[in-house]
Amino acid sequence: MGLIFHERVGLDGRRISPFSWRIRYALAHKQLDPEVIPTRFADVGRVRGLSGQDLVPIIQDDGQVVHDSWAIACHLEDRFPERPSLFGGAAGRGAARLVNVWSDTVLGRSMRGQIYADFIWCIDPGDRAYFRRSREMQVGMTLEDYCADRDRSLPAFIELCAPLERTLSEQPFLAGPVPAYVDYVIFSVFQWARIGSPRDVLPDTAKMDATIAWRARMVALYGGLGDRFPGYPMERTSPDGRATQEVKA
Amino acid sequence: MGLIFHERVGLDGRRISPFSWRIRYALAHKQLDPEVIPTRFADVGRVRGLSGQDLVPIIQDDGQVVHDSWAIACHLEDRFPERPSLFGGAAGRGAARLVNVWSDTVLGRSMRGQIYADFIWCIDPGDRAYFRRSREMQVGMTLEDYCADRDRSLPAFIELCAPLERTLSEQPFLAGPVPAYVDYVIFSVFQWARIGSPRDVLPDTAKMDATIAWRARMVALYGGLGDRFPGYPMERTSPDGRATQEVKA
Repeated sequence: MGLIFHERVGLDGRRISPFSWRIRYALAHKQLDPEVIPTRFADVGRVRGLSGQDLVPIIQDDGQVVHDSWAIACHLEDRFPERPSLFGGAAGRGAARLVNVWSDTVLGRSMRGQIYADFIWCIDPGDRAYFRRSREMQVGMTLEDYCADRDRSLPAFIELCAPLERTLSEQPFLAGPVPAYVDYVIFSVFQWARIGSPRDVLPDTAKMDATIAWRARMVALYGGLGDRFPGYPMERTSPDGRATQEVKA
Repeated sequence: MGLIFHERVGLDGRRISPFSWRIRYALAHKQLDPEVIPTRFADVGRVRGLSGQDLVPIIQDDGQVVHDSWAIACHLEDRFPERPSLFGGAAGRGAARLVNVWSDTVLGRSMRGQIYADFIWCIDPGDRAYFRRSREMQVGMTLEDYCADRDRSLPAFIELCAPLERTLSEQPFLAGPVPAYVDYVIFSVFQWARIGSPRDVLPDTAKMDATIAWRARMVALYGGLGDRFPGYPMERTSPDGRATQEVKA
């Protein structure tokens, strides 16, 4: 078949990227089992040589190179139309794009402030300096300062999720009776937090029962895909591999 | 066919309800031309007798009574499956529900703060006392106080619309190449503002060019459906019909 999936990895093979996670779920949905090339931030030379830009996920499909998770999802849908649909047609694809944009710009942005200070520790030690430098430039402060207020801003994050809770109290998946790409996109943001922080952004007190139950169903899909790789490292290790701190969830 | 549409009306037949507007567009999409029963707030007795609750829109379909705009859209889709689809299938319907909830709870709620003080004037004079009383109880202050800060809160409203702008800069309609129910839902919120206030919530300075162009395309659909009824009243009339004030857009 010749399908290759360049997927972001972190410490000890952890899958740390929400963009790669949504494609991993999309591939499982399409019953595709590509060759996976684990890709660290340090592998940017290969990524750039292949695609002319710096980001993964990237799909190589019989020589065709597709980057950007939305473009990849559309490619998989169009290339394998006989397999289970990611969008359920043109109108579903259109609405999925809106949900995708909302997820990235509203949910994902708010989630950063909940997890970045923890997230650095699940990145490969050799990538941490790059990650810290680039993200601290992006947010204009240290990762720790960026998250310092996170307990007080958690209710605002949860409020952003209110449309998910209402929808999921009415239907089992965001795409309706069965999961599809809108579920993978939104779940990827929560999965990012599951892997990237020991702290649950949806505590029992959040009154997000339907969303919490949906998240568990999403983890369990495709043979427990959401738990196939290591979770948050419960010991923080320095670049030379020494444990520096035990982590409490 | 026996289809009857109980539709909210205001001053001189104005169509003032975002929930009725999305159903009016859905009916046009389905090429249905029901008998329309204009319904004022004062007609609550008929509404309650018919449906056991106070809100319109309501559809009567050969004796079956359906209320709640989402339930009506689903009813029309399932009852007339051979006509153009509102959702494009199960996954599209699922995602449309999420967009619908987001539109009502995020966009719609913010829009109230932009228009309520103006909106009272496009309501039938006989309904104004009820509307003012019920909405002021809801928001906990006078309509005028509720909107007093609207120029300063407009940028926050526009920021909520950012996912629309990004999506519409990539595709002509929220449902993709052709409009469908997600477009009608979101448009109904902007249409509510078009009818309910002389002030444009998307001024040229807002950098919302794609959304503004989409809004114009939505107004023009179905023979200019968005402009078929009177717009914002440019003279404010008291309950006895006397003009009390000229309005500047």
